[in-house]
Amino acid sequence: MKKYQLMAPGPTPVPSEVLLAMAQPIIHHRTPQYERLFGDVRAGLKRLFQTSADVLPLACSGTGAMEAAFVNTLSAGDTVVVVRAGKFGDRWLEMATAYGLDIIDLTAPFGHSVPAERLAEALKAHPNVKAVLTQHSESSTGVLHDVRSYAAVTRGHDAILIVDAVSSLGIADLPMDAWGIDVVLSGSQKGLMLPPGLGFCALNDKAWAKARTSTLPKFYFNLAEERKFLMRNEVRFTPAVSIIVGLREAIRMIEAEGLANVFKRHDRLARATRAGVEALGLELFAKATPSPALTAVMAPRGVDSEKILAAYSQSHNITIAGGQAEMKGQLFRLGHMGYAAEFDVIAALAALELVLADLGQPVDFGGSVRAAQKIFAEKS
Amino acid sequence: MKKYQLMAPGPTPVPSEVLLAMAQPIIHHRTPQYERLFGDVRAGLKRLFQTSADVLPLACSGTGAMEAAFVNTLSAGDTVVVVRAGKFGDRWLEMATAYGLDIIDLTAPFGHSVPAERLAEALKAHPNVKAVLTQHSESSTGVLHDVRSYAAVTRGHDAILIVDAVSSLGIADLPMDAWGIDVVLSGSQKGLMLPPGLGFCALNDKAWAKARTSTLPKFYFNLAEERKFLMRNEVRFTPAVSIIVGLREAIRMIEAEGLANVFKRHDRLARATRAGVEALGLELFAKATPSPALTAVMAPRGVDSEKILAAYSQSHNITIAGGQAEMKGQLFRLGHMGYAAEFDVIAALAALELVLADLGQPVDFGGSVRAAQKIFAEKS
Repeated sequence: MKKYQLMAPGPTPVPSEVLLAMAQPIIHHRTPQYERLFGDVRAGLKRLFQTSADVLPLACSGTGAMEAAFVNTLSAGDTVVVVRAGKFGDRWLEMATAYGLDIIDLTAPFGHSVPAERLAEALKAHPNVKAVLTQHSESSTGVLHDVRSYAAVTRGHDAILIVDAVSSLGIADLPMDAWGIDVVLSGSQKGLMLPPGLGFCALNDKAWAKARTSTLPKFYFNLAEERKFLMRNEVRFTPAVSIIVGLREAIRMIEAEGLANVFKRHDRLARATRAGVEALGLELFAKATPSPALTAVMAPRGVDSEKILAAYSQSHNITIAGGQAEMKGQLFRLGHMGYAAEFDVIAALAALELVLADLGQPVDFGGSVRAAQKIFAEKS
Repeated sequence: MKKYQLMAPGPTPVPSEVLLAMAQPIIHHRTPQYERLFGDVRAGLKRLFQTSADVLPLACSGTGAMEAAFVNTLSAGDTVVVVRAGKFGDRWLEMATAYGLDIIDLTAPFGHSVPAERLAEALKAHPNVKAVLTQHSESSTGVLHDVRSYAAVTRGHDAILIVDAVSSLGIADLPMDAWGIDVVLSGSQKGLMLPPGLGFCALNDKAWAKARTSTLPKFYFNLAEERKFLMRNEVRFTPAVSIIVGLREAIRMIEAEGLANVFKRHDRLARATRAGVEALGLELFAKATPSPALTAVMAPRGVDSEKILAAYSQSHNITIAGGQAEMKGQLFRLGHMGYAAEFDVIAALAALELVLADLGQPVDFGGSVRAAQKIFAEKS
């Protein structure tokens, strides 16, 4: 028996408690029963997003939530700044291109991050910018971007800051209101420990003001219309009922642990993973602040990282992820987000040692495990 | 104990087999395991849609699938014909308005249907029409529109026919290729017996030709891009994995019964429901061909139909639906689609008799049940 283990940077494993909540008979979405559920979920989402703004759930994946944030706040002819250093950052560029907006493109090499000073200069040089589009955790490179400093820049400017927090919500601290982020969007399948299929958007007053004059066409993702229903604790279109049911249970689990403790746990898992892979002499892909959601690791010289993935899967029944697009073959990515705990990291590292040995690499068995244990032995 | 029964016109109950399939540990969507699942599901969807075209699953509700069909085949400045006689027909009008297209509006009173002759005249008078937008089963009125005859009209014209089959796929026969329907879209939570959160679009060659020149902006719903991934049996964005897993089980159940038998079952359930409510002296809302998915019934004179809903729920723990928008208070709707069988109809009718008696209406107990039994006693 090889137990199946999902250790990719999303979707993450779903706890049995959530799976079983979702396996209950389905309820109708225009009933007092759903209204109670939705009321609980709406209140819980505000606490997770650390905002007093409404958090709107949408039946879509994270990319759908990105598009909802985009089409509701922007207009034809607008200029946007895209701040990117990875494949999910590229997605903002592709979206802005698809909608024909003018783009100021701030990039850093993959594995790095764009300093807030460059954003400040760009906004100074282009006072007509309407929005800044970026990621908090960039899942393709394992870097955590400094959206707090980006927000400090946009707060003094007409532009809104739109942050893709798909792989950071419930993983890394992101106090939307305290930092002054105008739009935070996320998805269900990462920190929230749910199946994919639910997206979220939260807009502050500055963003809703942009929404009032936004001219990009939208219907399914029209958040102003959706909000009218939300005000009555109702939904505009049929929601992803079963995932909403799971969400109530996931919020309960997160709050039983405590949101601050959830962030601490992710930080410990990430530090232990990094210590483990570095103990094996491997190089981290992230040169800037690493994300607590996942660790991107350079394959040893001369080894195709796709072979590492394949060995994880075939020999150990563990799913991890590889490098995306031009990073394919160069790196592999270990997820430690959502429903992930210390011995998952230990298993991932122990498997890595076996995989590397199998691929003919010199390995000091237990070396990475020991490094991780040292982190776990620290008093928090 | 009052057993909970969901008898609304969608979402419909989800079979335990499907719920339990979905409660299995989640799998990653970029693995050989998902590729096998996706291959099975793609082939099964083609059989359900009765088409050789690709059926593209999308993480969204039915309205998202409507928008995907719309934005992928149409361009700024296009003229479309909206054929509508209900709230879901209205949705096409709202969407075409949101995207600023020119609209030729063919309407019939709610409960009725637009004859194909009127469509033929409109297309003759307006040879520049690019698409005809309609429903197969109109869930708000319980009418089945004659999309076969609409397709006979559009086949001789440059315009494509886009059919919303959200509440008819797997319920009423809709042979996409044989009838020459250009786009069929649907959702997961009706005939497919799944939770909501998955939409589907199938385009034939005529529709894909329109897609090649379509200029309406899109990103998340870009079907041409999605299809490039589909060709490799992959998905562009994170799919609603758990519902896809459930879909394989639902397709298995539908095909074990046989698609033709599934249509016959729905027809019998619908005929029995209609016979039952008419035996109670109630009037059907549908004046045109009734839908096999649901039965819309006029409340007795002087009775607010919302009271009927409330009594179903409070006294019997059964969820049915009321009239939407201007039909609110006038009618109630009984769903008999998807995971619905003979004794569900018997229960719905027996409860209706008890509800009406409670509301002070004269009722011959057993009268509607007897009428339904006579239908079920017929040799099929």
